[in-house]
Amino acid sequence: MSTPKPVEYATASKAVRAVFDDIKKSRKVDDVNNFWKYLARDPATLKRTWESVKQIMAPGALDPLTKEMIYLAVSVTNGCGYCIASHTPAARKAGMSEAMFGEVMAVVGMANETNRLANGYRVPIDAAFEK
Amino acid sequence: MSTPKPVEYATASKAVRAVFDDIKKSRKVDDVNNFWKYLARDPATLKRTWESVKQIMAPGALDPLTKEMIYLAVSVTNGCGYCIASHTPAARKAGMSEAMFGEVMAVVGMANETNRLANGYRVPIDAAFEK
Amino acid sequence: MSTPKPVEYATASKAVRAVFDDIKKSRKVDDVNNFWKYLARDPATLKRTWESVKQIMAPGALDPLTKEMIYLAVSVTNGCGYCIASHTPAARKAGMSEAMFGEVMAVVGMANETNRLANGYRVPIDAAFEK
Amino acid sequence: MSTPKPVEYATASKAVRAVFDDIKKSRKVDDVNNFWKYLARDPATLKRTWESVKQIMAPGALDPLTKEMIYLAVSVTNGCGYCIASHTPAARKAGMSEAMFGEVMAVVGMANETNRLANGYRVPIDAAFEK
Amino acid sequence: MSTPKPVEYATASKAVRAVFDDIKKSRKVDDVNNFWKYLARDPATLKRTWESVKQIMAPGALDPLTKEMIYLAVSVTNGCGYCIASHTPAARKAGMSEAMFGEVMAVVGMANETNRLANGYRVPIDAAFEK
Amino acid sequence: MSTPKPVEYATASKAVRAVFDDIKKSRKVDDVNNFWKYLARDPATLKRTWESVKQIMAPGALDPLTKEMIYLAVSVTNGCGYCIASHTPAARKAGMSEAMFGEVMAVVGMANETNRLANGYRVPIDAAFEK
Repeated sequence: MSTPKPVEYATASKAVRAVFDDIKKSRKVDDVNNFWKYLARDPATLKRTWESVKQIMAPGALDPLTKEMIYLAVSVTNGCGYCIASHTPAARKAGMSEAMFGEVMAVVGMANETNRLANGYRVPIDAAFEK
Repeated sequence: MSTPKPVEYATASKAVRAVFDDIKKSRKVDDVNNFWKYLARDPATLKRTWESVKQIMAPGALDPLTKEMIYLAVSVTNGCGYCIASHTPAARKAGMSEAMFGEVMAVVGMANETNRLANGYRVPIDAAFEK
Repeated sequence: MSTPKPVEYATASKAVRAVFDDIKKSRKVDDVNNFWKYLARDPATLKRTWESVKQIMAPGALDPLTKEMIYLAVSVTNGCGYCIASHTPAARKAGMSEAMFGEVMAVVGMANETNRLANGYRVPIDAAFEK
Repeated sequence: MSTPKPVEYATASKAVRAVFDDIKKSRKVDDVNNFWKYLARDPATLKRTWESVKQIMAPGALDPLTKEMIYLAVSVTNGCGYCIASHTPAARKAGMSEAMFGEVMAVVGMANETNRLANGYRVPIDAAFEK
Repeated sequence: MSTPKPVEYATASKAVRAVFDDIKKSRKVDDVNNFWKYLARDPATLKRTWESVKQIMAPGALDPLTKEMIYLAVSVTNGCGYCIASHTPAARKAGMSEAMFGEVMAVVGMANETNRLANGYRVPIDAAFEK
Repeated sequence: MSTPKPVEYATASKAVRAVFDDIKKSRKVDDVNNFWKYLARDPATLKRTWESVKQIMAPGALDPLTKEMIYLAVSVTNGCGYCIASHTPAARKAGMSEAMFGEVMAVVGMANETNRLANGYRVPIDAAFEK
């Protein structure tokens, strides 16, 4: 009873289908990922999340590749297994090379280390940063 | 007794000075940030951390601006106050505009949200991602 | 050697059995969850944790459903797979409907997003909150 | 240069004022919190975040008090200082008594503890939870 | 109204005083830390937390110094400012030297880094670890 | 395409083999763990990480067992599945008994709980800690 069930297109409500259709059209894919099929259990969250993701990940001051790498960096920091598994290929599709992947991981690892060194050594903020 | 004291150049050991000199030269700055002055309490950690940061943040497959934005994204996710305060100006210095900053924050916020939606809905990894 | 082994009732010590019996009686279940069987490797931790959980999750100023939803919100934020898998049915048993589940997830997702926006924009605490 | 500056109503753009006006009207307050004034540096994020928060925190299957307590539970788990400082009075305004606050904290503390015990003991998910 | 107020001994209830007395006696101190004064707002949480901390931090298979360093490592990882500020002197009092402090921080930093590298590279668990 | 592939010794570059050889020699093992085989996708990160780990985990002011238990405490706090699975046997090999394991877990659990209580009650740092 408690295990979440994904919503498939064939049995989806009209509201859910409209979102699925927009995802498929925007991303030029034949089917949506599990993430959207599970979120479809709550059509309001599905719609709001997709519209936010669509707006935020669109090209702007930053290109889609940079945005995907930042998304991946957050997911790796949080240890979200699904998100790492889905955003690594998304970043590759957007142009992330093997060398870029290695450098993203190196920066993420180092930032997680120095974040804790700053915490542990209780480093006060430099006056120069507050100007 | 227990409050960490920073190490200033004037009273630093030869080993610490060598690292401080390299930071100042590499970054073209007159003094090192508090982070390094506090880390200098442990010269081995100071040296290892600086050498790793220097290697990782150098231009490579990713440019310094992209690396700084990823660093900032991790620091914001972890809520490291010092790191956010120091890496925001570092990213600006590397070329992050106000619009870019807004987009980094938007992606970081959204990734932190969708990471939890994926967790809570217990979304299984799509077979397509495992190819 | 290093893989944790659960403690089953049949081979449990008297001290562990006493805790298992109390869990089964309090929760009106025939067997305890894996969480308690694994914790039973350390009888002191088993006993202390059960007594704390029993006290904290009992009806008080908050009803058991609200408490279960808060428990779930924390587990989703931390990404604890086991805890999400066990507390989702626990919350349902306490009365969480599908619509409530959707709203808990929406709040958890949004709070995780705005927590990072507050971090990244370095928002100072309003004087009005400190009264 | 790098320290974020809040946007005040008097000097805000028309788009920002529209959001501020809606917040003030919806919440029946004379001024918006610092969170919104800082977010206003990026009008798109301001608008999207406010609309999402407004939709998510509205009464639904869960009442506003329950939602505020869940918000607080997430913020405490993440250690977001601003969010804790702002959502504690928000929860009180929605009806959280001192006794309720104490129980929210007790559940949050316990969930953070048992999340780690489940991680450390590497507890496998019970077959019963997967039905 | 919403800002937490600490409970001082002079005005504390009998139940709170009993806990404060036990803390002072056990730790041979004249007054309890702010942590306990704030927790005293909820006497049940105060009592339960103190009894758990007292039991857990007592000498056992691990000595008090090792336990304090582990406590500090967790607090630094979570970025809990109060906890770092209070447990650093506690660890020093238990015997942590400056060199030990440096090594704790180094291990904490490195573990936080390699945790993310393991996440990002999606490293599968070695069969040898499951024996 | 996007699923990370481990690098095996037989097909590794000279640079990667040199690191693998040093790991095998230092740890007196016949093969390296998956962690190193996956990291080998980026030889620079492999080399830097191994050299840092080797330096940090060597006996110093703290013995290897204490260091392994701190590593484990961080990994459990972060919920890194691979790291918990690999460092639990590493700690056992270094001398962690079943009773020690139980106490590490108890301290980690309690610290994660009190970290949140300190956050939620917004406990200010005692003046005595700042001396």
